[in-house]
Amino acid sequence: MNKAYEQLQTYLERAQAFQTARVLFEWDNETLAPRAAGPNTSRVVGTLSGEYFSVITDPEVKKLVKECEKEDLTETEKAIVRELAEEIDKLEKVPAKEYREFSELTSESARIWADARKKKDFDSFAPTLKKLIEYTKKFASYRAGEGQKLYDVLLDDYEKGFDMETLDRFFGTLKEQLVPFLKKLTDSGVKVDDSFLTGDYSERDQEAIGRFLAEYVGFDFDKGVMAVSAHPFTTNLHNKDVRITTSYNNHVDDSLFSVIHESGHAIYEMGIPDDLTQTLVGTGASMGMHESQSRFFENIIGRNRAFWVPVYGRLQKQFPAQLKEVSLDQFVKAVNKVEPSLIRTQADELTYSLHVLIRYEIEKMLIEEDLDVEELPRIWADKYEEYLGVRPKDVAEGVLQDIHWSQGSFGYFPSYALGSAFGAQLYAYMKKEMDFEGLLEKGDMGRIREFLRENIHRYGKLKTSRQMLKDVTGEDFDPQYYIDYLTDKYGKLYGI
Amino acid sequence: MNKAYEQLQTYLERAQAFQTARVLFEWDNETLAPRAAGPNTSRVVGTLSGEYFSVITDPEVKKLVKECEKEDLTETEKAIVRELAEEIDKLEKVPAKEYREFSELTSESARIWADARKKKDFDSFAPTLKKLIEYTKKFASYRAGEGQKLYDVLLDDYEKGFDMETLDRFFGTLKEQLVPFLKKLTDSGVKVDDSFLTGDYSERDQEAIGRFLAEYVGFDFDKGVMAVSAHPFTTNLHNKDVRITTSYNNHVDDSLFSVIHESGHAIYEMGIPDDLTQTLVGTGASMGMHESQSRFFENIIGRNRAFWVPVYGRLQKQFPAQLKEVSLDQFVKAVNKVEPSLIRTQADELTYSLHVLIRYEIEKMLIEEDLDVEELPRIWADKYEEYLGVRPKDVAEGVLQDIHWSQGSFGYFPSYALGSAFGAQLYAYMKKEMDFEGLLEKGDMGRIREFLRENIHRYGKLKTSRQMLKDVTGEDFDPQYYIDYLTDKYGKLYGI
Repeated sequence: MNKAYEQLQTYLERAQAFQTARVLFEWDNETLAPRAAGPNTSRVVGTLSGEYFSVITDPEVKKLVKECEKEDLTETEKAIVRELAEEIDKLEKVPAKEYREFSELTSESARIWADARKKKDFDSFAPTLKKLIEYTKKFASYRAGEGQKLYDVLLDDYEKGFDMETLDRFFGTLKEQLVPFLKKLTDSGVKVDDSFLTGDYSERDQEAIGRFLAEYVGFDFDKGVMAVSAHPFTTNLHNKDVRITTSYNNHVDDSLFSVIHESGHAIYEMGIPDDLTQTLVGTGASMGMHESQSRFFENIIGRNRAFWVPVYGRLQKQFPAQLKEVSLDQFVKAVNKVEPSLIRTQADELTYSLHVLIRYEIEKMLIEEDLDVEELPRIWADKYEEYLGVRPKDVAEGVLQDIHWSQGSFGYFPSYALGSAFGAQLYAYMKKEMDFEGLLEKGDMGRIREFLRENIHRYGKLKTSRQMLKDVTGEDFDPQYYIDYLTDKYGKLYGI
Repeated sequence: MNKAYEQLQTYLERAQAFQTARVLFEWDNETLAPRAAGPNTSRVVGTLSGEYFSVITDPEVKKLVKECEKEDLTETEKAIVRELAEEIDKLEKVPAKEYREFSELTSESARIWADARKKKDFDSFAPTLKKLIEYTKKFASYRAGEGQKLYDVLLDDYEKGFDMETLDRFFGTLKEQLVPFLKKLTDSGVKVDDSFLTGDYSERDQEAIGRFLAEYVGFDFDKGVMAVSAHPFTTNLHNKDVRITTSYNNHVDDSLFSVIHESGHAIYEMGIPDDLTQTLVGTGASMGMHESQSRFFENIIGRNRAFWVPVYGRLQKQFPAQLKEVSLDQFVKAVNKVEPSLIRTQADELTYSLHVLIRYEIEKMLIEEDLDVEELPRIWADKYEEYLGVRPKDVAEGVLQDIHWSQGSFGYFPSYALGSAFGAQLYAYMKKEMDFEGLLEKGDMGRIREFLRENIHRYGKLKTSRQMLKDVTGEDFDPQYYIDYLTDKYGKLYGI
């Protein structure tokens, strides 16, 4: 009898319920809620957040966690207690008053950022950003271990086991090898026509093909929902209620690949086993591992010629006017067109990680080197010019493009690039295990999806991303797979 | 300084948050949630219900309520404390464990009902219904006053001051006067052509006109949402987030009038003042008063010739193929066609209350006379034959047609008929105060809506329905207004 563990369950169930309700309110707010609902609904969500905080930091919970150490728990139970202990630690070390001040700041700051971006006026956001950085550093300092750097504390929140030392090496490799490769590619003068991807693609038809593709790659509509929001995202209440959104515009590839991307996130959450869902370990292992799945589906599967062999005819049928005369190869080339650009979320697969590299370097400077916030627009522009060969003409397409910092999220960006690198390492391994492209050409997604479920999804948060990668591939994280994947793929596509 | 009242606010805010979250889950479940989500989501909803229960029945709350008696409170504050005291009483008498089991049951049972209805298989729902009735009776027995009948306890929840004695008289009057009137009408041999209301009415066009009508009668889309569900309903998170649903089929009048009906409910909730919303008195006074508003909009306004004078052209424009050749008078006759039928929600205004009468009689038998659930399909069919002259050929168009019982709602149906009667009494009064039909003909909904807001909506639950009716019309509830309204209207329409 594990009495303390049993007693914890009531608290965990309550915390889970508050958290799930918050998720539903967030989903609702992004997809459906009426314009005027904001302030009244915020009161409700604020109260639910307070309840979550109260449960987790209840002194009784802390006591029970301690007692659990003496009990004979299963691996899963141990992992749940470990996650809880971390959550307590995270919430408890920040004085409630400061946390509240910070919450108030962040409930305002995203709006200030949005206004500043709209007015292309960095100065109106700078003082807020400064405060956000101050709080972030202060909170990190409360939580830092002996001799631990502040930015490492933040990185650890999103990706355990990836500190600045590891990331310096990772991003260093990217910079060293991808920047020159990109230059070679753009200098090659190869022109790719993707004009047919833009046009009168009706929202209705985009939705129909989006639903088809989601289901085709493995999104289970019995356990999921697809809706529309300003920016695509995935969320989940539990493993049998996973929700994705997309948005529609006249670039058909935006919705096609955002649906496949979000389906990758969703399939991860749908693959969490029943005995883990609705517990503290019942979700994806980390931000990076999540992105590894979404980007795996989007790029390694979705932008693969083999994927479209059985599917492209279906797409042409949906859009005969636009695609009847476009061959499979023209289409595949177009959706893999490389073009150094200013906006991260619209970046192609090759240049994407360079956008992330820039954010990583700047975050390090902000957190570790006391970079003056006023300097940001210039430094941002200089780095874009250096790595990507393009220079923003204003802050809206420069330093103000991402929402993350305005929400107080620092240390989150690196996971985007890490996810792609995880995916490439998995891909290299899977190609040895199965005829990856052959399966895609046969329209057989099952084997690939089952591999991911069996080796990644089913573990939830029982292992770290790094451990999982090691267990699957037999090797520690190695960024070279990512570089090789990209240079190989784009070398062939561009004949360089 | 009203210290106890101030201290109560934290508890009330938490109770409100849990309640609002439950409402959102319910909305989501009816409109969007994936099929397989049920059991996991039920756990969450069950926990939230338990939290609501814990807050309301917290001994500290009870103590504070007592202390409030000594404080100098405003009328609104007193009403809030009174509602809270009633809620405590209601919940406290039910053991927490049973309440939670019941909540979990009801979050599953609607799905079981829907499946059973689809399969036309009463037996697959019967065991669930049995359990629902058992819980309902058990809970009512905990709450019953000295010598109070169980069904009276339930009736009181929806309509204070209307017990079986009053309702026996009310339904007795209806049965006595309307059943023969209906017979006379059907025997008259007058034929009304409504064939044009059925046809190829596209969902898209129905939605467009539905949105137009909702807005026309006063639904504010800045504060509301319209969606699709199996069974139309209205719900609200607060006065700035009010949601209606409808469903679409090839009978265009179904969606037209369900939208106007639900808009009536919604306008009531949108009319709750800011200082009442999100409090225990911040919603409609009672089920019956709510139905009085929805049916007022649907029938007294919406099926009124005067209403369609400025609007019918718009409808014809939406459906030229179907309605171009149909005159306003033909249309108005058709939407007021009396035809004894099997489905309550599709019933005409005249026969509607007879559907409710049947449910009232059956609920009385289920709660007061231990009627065996297995007997329901037969008894249901017999009563339809007796009062309406029609007999269902299966349970989908018989006893399984309504969602209410599957949600554990017993005692709710009578309010539908009471609401119509309240509305008729209000209408009789308003006609003396304003040129009702003249306003409708001018397309001026404002004066009528404002009257309802000023005299009913703005009070929330500060008064009972019966009191409000008295305050507005100067008379106690009198069902004769309803009978007179119906026999007058349909006597004229059918020339009998």
